[in-house]
Formats: sequence, structure tokens, C-alpha cells
Amino acid sequence: MPEDLRNRVDRQPTVAGLSEADLLARIFPRLRMEGGHDSNLLLGPGDDAAIVAAPDGKTVISIDTQVQDQDFRLLWPNGYRTTGFDVGWKAAAQNLSDINAMGAHATSIVVSLTLPVDTPVRWVEDLADGLRAGIRELGAVHCSVAGGDLGRGREISVTAAVLGNLDGGRPVLRSGARPGDILALAGTVGHAAAGLALLESGVPLDSLTPAEQAFVDLQCRPRPPLEAGPAARAAGATAMLDISDGLLRDGKRLATASHVAVALDPARLTQLADLLGPAAARLGADAAPWVLGGGEDHGLLATFPAGVQLPPGFTAIGSVHALGTDEGPGVLIAGRAADTGGWDHFAH
Amino acid sequence: MPEDLRNRVDRQPTVAGLSEADLLARIFPRLRMEGGHDSNLLLGPGDDAAIVAAPDGKTVISIDTQVQDQDFRLLWPNGYRTTGFDVGWKAAAQNLSDINAMGAHATSIVVSLTLPVDTPVRWVEDLADGLRAGIRELGAVHCSVAGGDLGRGREISVTAAVLGNLDGGRPVLRSGARPGDILALAGTVGHAAAGLALLESGVPLDSLTPAEQAFVDLQCRPRPPLEAGPAARAAGATAMLDISDGLLRDGKRLATASHVAVALDPARLTQLADLLGPAAARLGADAAPWVLGGGEDHGLLATFPAGVQLPPGFTAIGSVHALGTDEGPGVLIAGRAADTGGWDHFAH
Repeated sequence: MPEDLRNRVDRQPTVAGLSEADLLARIFPRLRMEGGHDSNLLLGPGDDAAIVAAPDGKTVISIDTQVQDQDFRLLWPNGYRTTGFDVGWKAAAQNLSDINAMGAHATSIVVSLTLPVDTPVRWVEDLADGLRAGIRELGAVHCSVAGGDLGRGREISVTAAVLGNLDGGRPVLRSGARPGDILALAGTVGHAAAGLALLESGVPLDSLTPAEQAFVDLQCRPRPPLEAGPAARAAGATAMLDISDGLLRDGKRLATASHVAVALDPARLTQLADLLGPAAARLGADAAPWVLGGGEDHGLLATFPAGVQLPPGFTAIGSVHALGTDEGPGVLIAGRAADTGGWDHFAH
Repeated sequence: MPEDLRNRVDRQPTVAGLSEADLLARIFPRLRMEGGHDSNLLLGPGDDAAIVAAPDGKTVISIDTQVQDQDFRLLWPNGYRTTGFDVGWKAAAQNLSDINAMGAHATSIVVSLTLPVDTPVRWVEDLADGLRAGIRELGAVHCSVAGGDLGRGREISVTAAVLGNLDGGRPVLRSGARPGDILALAGTVGHAAAGLALLESGVPLDSLTPAEQAFVDLQCRPRPPLEAGPAARAAGATAMLDISDGLLRDGKRLATASHVAVALDPARLTQLADLLGPAAARLGADAAPWVLGGGEDHGLLATFPAGVQLPPGFTAIGSVHALGTDEGPGVLIAGRAADTGGWDHFAH
């Protein structure tokens, strides 16, 4: 069982005392959406499978897992305890972001929970609340929870699969960037990484500044810009992906798929790093790796034809270039190749 | 790490030496389908999400997880070692069965793998082969693997989400059974439970009879009758579900959803148990609990209007009755209520 939950187990009912049906009966009412969220749900939980509308004859699909001690700690070094709400929210955010990155909007999520027997029931109910709140507050207004699966394990694991709708349009792939395109960013970058560094530090929770607290909040409950993906598609984005592993790694993925080089503007990187300066100073850390390597904000990196007015939420962060002779696809900063180990190339 | 794999680790490369991209590059080529299997896959692995056809404007969706030591043992008491192939096959079978139970056929599967760092690469490749073989050999001819996710954990966990197509038809729900309907079974029941009992026994692997080996094989690589679900829908089935937790529990689910009683024919139960008699005798066990409680064969329990010719694969196993005064929905055997603890009611 999770060591870090043990002190709560003595005081709270755990899932060990409940059948799967009992636990589902606690969860599903918390996942019910109102206000149009259920509009795509043709058959909800309770049968062998759910049925979701796919009005344009196709569905976008992605799947993502969070595992205890890999993707979150139940108890962080700085004293913060990850709540079920955080994990539920993050499951929603990560999955919705993958749909966003295709330029689609989400229609439905299904969730499979693996729980140690000593997990408090309250923690699981809180996860359901976080999942629902994430969908709702991130603005996935056409998305509902269609169903799920529950099982036992030695560690908490949450897998969500998400469906999306392109409204008859074409998806924005990673492979469409062309030389001359503008490289643009939507959402924040490096904030969740700063939050992670604070969680992993000895800085006490109650001494965090409001800005630092916001970074921690973003690590625990990311806020992908869900309007930006469909807006980018409508504006003619040539390529796009979710920044889940950082500007350098995800920039390289886009460059590789499109067979181009993408250049990041050092002045913009410096601006992005400056936002993180005070938190970096507090920790004696460098903000550059957060900006270049931080992915859990789940922003979008997209390319647009030159001259296109960038849609709301996007700002230019660089440009797309043809590959020179003997040059492989990758990320350039100030004219030099920046590989995933290339922090040195970024002096701010 | 899985204790039971340790003796293999010394001799084999593990996933610890590979990046996620490296491992995906090993897996995805093994999942490629030919012969029409990819017909519903509009965009495959490699982007943030996949795109799957939903020709009639809706998609059926389900999700299911297998966790090491909960749903399978890496090393069984009788000496059998669960292969990656077994786990991949079972992930396909369990998920395809949920789509089958709606009367639909599967269009696509996405998979999320959580792997301890010491998992042999070969074991993961074998899992991909089993997933592909399961889809193909079980006859899911319109289904392909659309994508997936990889991560680390302390135990092996495999979650698959599956999409299905109803071809413009209506799904067969659990709730449509009516008094007077025939109750029918497709596929085997209790064979996988007999296999589980053999795996959990001290009976050496090399002493198994061919029949016993077949039970073990069915536990490790279930064979849901994938033609039967759509055939039942076409024949006018009024209710249907996947037998994943046994005739009694799943029969009660159907009865509850439909607000009826379902009566199991004791003579048919005896016939089903007789098939398991020699294995039960070998273990000094009773075949009745296997027949009434065994679910992992993933057969179908369905109801049909009286007079309908049952579609191929189905045989009658009972009947549907109106609830009497003060009678709750449930399963009857020889006129008596058979609850999940009601083995006594079944004398064969």
C-alpha cells in the first residue's frame, strides 16, 4: 500500500471494504455533467461499453497513464500531499491536451483506476471530483465521462482514454511545418517544471509566494489552453503538437516529422525564463532548463504560414527553416543546434 | 521489479536501457496489420492522437486493465510462466469481448503499458505479438492498433481502450430482456476457471491431459466468440452482456437491468459441468462453481424473443420470467433464488 497514505488509513474507510459495484456507485454520480457536457454521450456507464457521438464519421483517440511515484508523489519533499482531486484533474488535462494538439475538441473520456486496497474511499471520490472539475474548468464543454473500469494493484494507476471530434476538418499533424513558417507557442512553458522543483525542494509550503504557489498548482493541476488547438486549426496551422516533454524534445519531434529545422528566438526564451527568475533564485536553480525541458504545462507548439495572424493565445517563439546540407532535423537556438542536452546553448 | 522475472533479467536486455521512443520503435512495427485490418485507421501511431473511422456517426468505447499479480501471475504455482504473448492476447480478448457484448465489431484498440524497468525487452515485444495475434485470430477483422502510451511502474499493468462500430444499428443493452424470452449462451463457461484452478494447483505442467491443457490455454488466452455478438443483434436479441464474472453475477446484472428473473436450466448446467468433470476430479474440486462463477472465458449471455431461431454459436440455457410479488431481480435455478453464494442450489 502507499506508505504515504498510511497515516490517513486509520481514520478513513478504504476501498478494501467495498465491492467494485459499491465503489462505482460512489463514483459515477460525481461524474455526471450538466450544461451540454453530455451532448455527445449516447449511452453512459452501466453496460459493457459506452456509445459516443462521432458526427463527422471519425473519432480522434488518445490514451495516457499516471502512475504513483512515477508521475506524482503522494507526499512531496516540501510536505505537499497530492490529492485525489489533483490526480483526477491531471488525468483530464493530459488527455484533453492530446486532443487539443490535433486541433480537435474532446467528446468523451473513459477511465481505468487501479487502486491499492488501503486507498481511502474519500481519495477516490476526490479523484472523480477532480476529473469532472478538470473537464469543466478547462472548458471541454462537449466532453463527459462515458465509463470506466476499477481494479486492484500495489500502486495507484490512472489511465484515461479520450475521444475527440474534428467537426469535419482535417487534423493538424506534426509533419506539416514548412520553411518560412512562424513557430508559435500557446500556454505557459516551464511553470509546471518550476512547481515540480519547489515540490521536490525543502522550501516549506507555507513560505511560498503567490507566484510560487501558482507554479506548484500548475504542476498538480495543469491548465492546457483548450481553445488554442481548434483555433490554430481554423487559422491554418501547418503543424502542431502538445508540449509534454519540453520545447527542445517536442520541437525536435515536430522538426523530425516535418523534416525541417525549427529555430527558437533567444529573446523570447529569455522573456519566458524571466517569469521564472524569482523561483529559480529562491532555489539556487537555473530557469533555462525549466523553459527548454519543462513539459507538464501542456502548452502547444504550432507552426503557421508567414503572414497569418496568430490566433488568440499564440505568440511567436521562432521560425521554421529548410535543412542545410548535412543538417538533420532539430532545434536551433541562436543558430546553433540545441539537442536535449544542450542547455549550454541557451544563455539568458 | 517482478521477482518472477529476475532469473531472466540476467540474460536478457531490459527496458531500462531503452528510451520510450526506442521501445515504441520496437513495438509499433509488430502491431501493423494487413488484410483490411487497418481499414478503419485514418491516422495511426506517431502523432498526439490517432484517428479512427466511425462510419455511422457514433462509436462504441470500453476500457479494461490487467495488473500483474491481480489478473495474472508471472509465475504460477504449477510452474507455468505467463508470457508477454498471453498478456497481450488477453488485453485484446477482454476488450474485444466488451464490444462484442454490445452487438458491435471492434474498429481500433489503443494500449497503455506500465512496465517495471527490469522487464525484458523480449517480453514486451512478445506482448505486442500477442495483442496482434489476439485481434487477428479471434477474427476482429476490422480492428487495428491505433496507438499507445508507455511508462514506468513497480508492477506490469496493461490498459487497453477499444472502439467499436454498430453499422448503423442499435446496441444490445442489458436492460431489454422481457418475460418469456429465451436465455442463451455463446462460447464456453467455466473452462477458464478450470484452467485457473490447474494453474493454481500443484499439478505439474507436463502431466496435463490435452483437455486440461486446453483449459489452461483458455485462461491465459481467452477466446470470446466474436461472431456471436453482431449475430445476436441481427437476430433480435433483447438483452446481452459479456460473462466476465460468471453466470450468476452476470445473470443477476442482466436481470436487475431488465427488472426480471432469469432461470437457468439445471440440466444444461449439468451438461456444462460434465465437460469439466475430469479436471475437477483430478483436483478434488467441484465443477459447479466453475460453471456458475467462472467468467474469464468471456462468453455471451443473451436473451431472445421466444420463437426466434438462435443464431449460430448460441444455445438455450434458460428463460426469462416476470418478477413475482416481493421478488427482486435475480437468477433462479430449479425455482430457487441463486445468489452469488448459492452454490448449494446447484446439485449436479
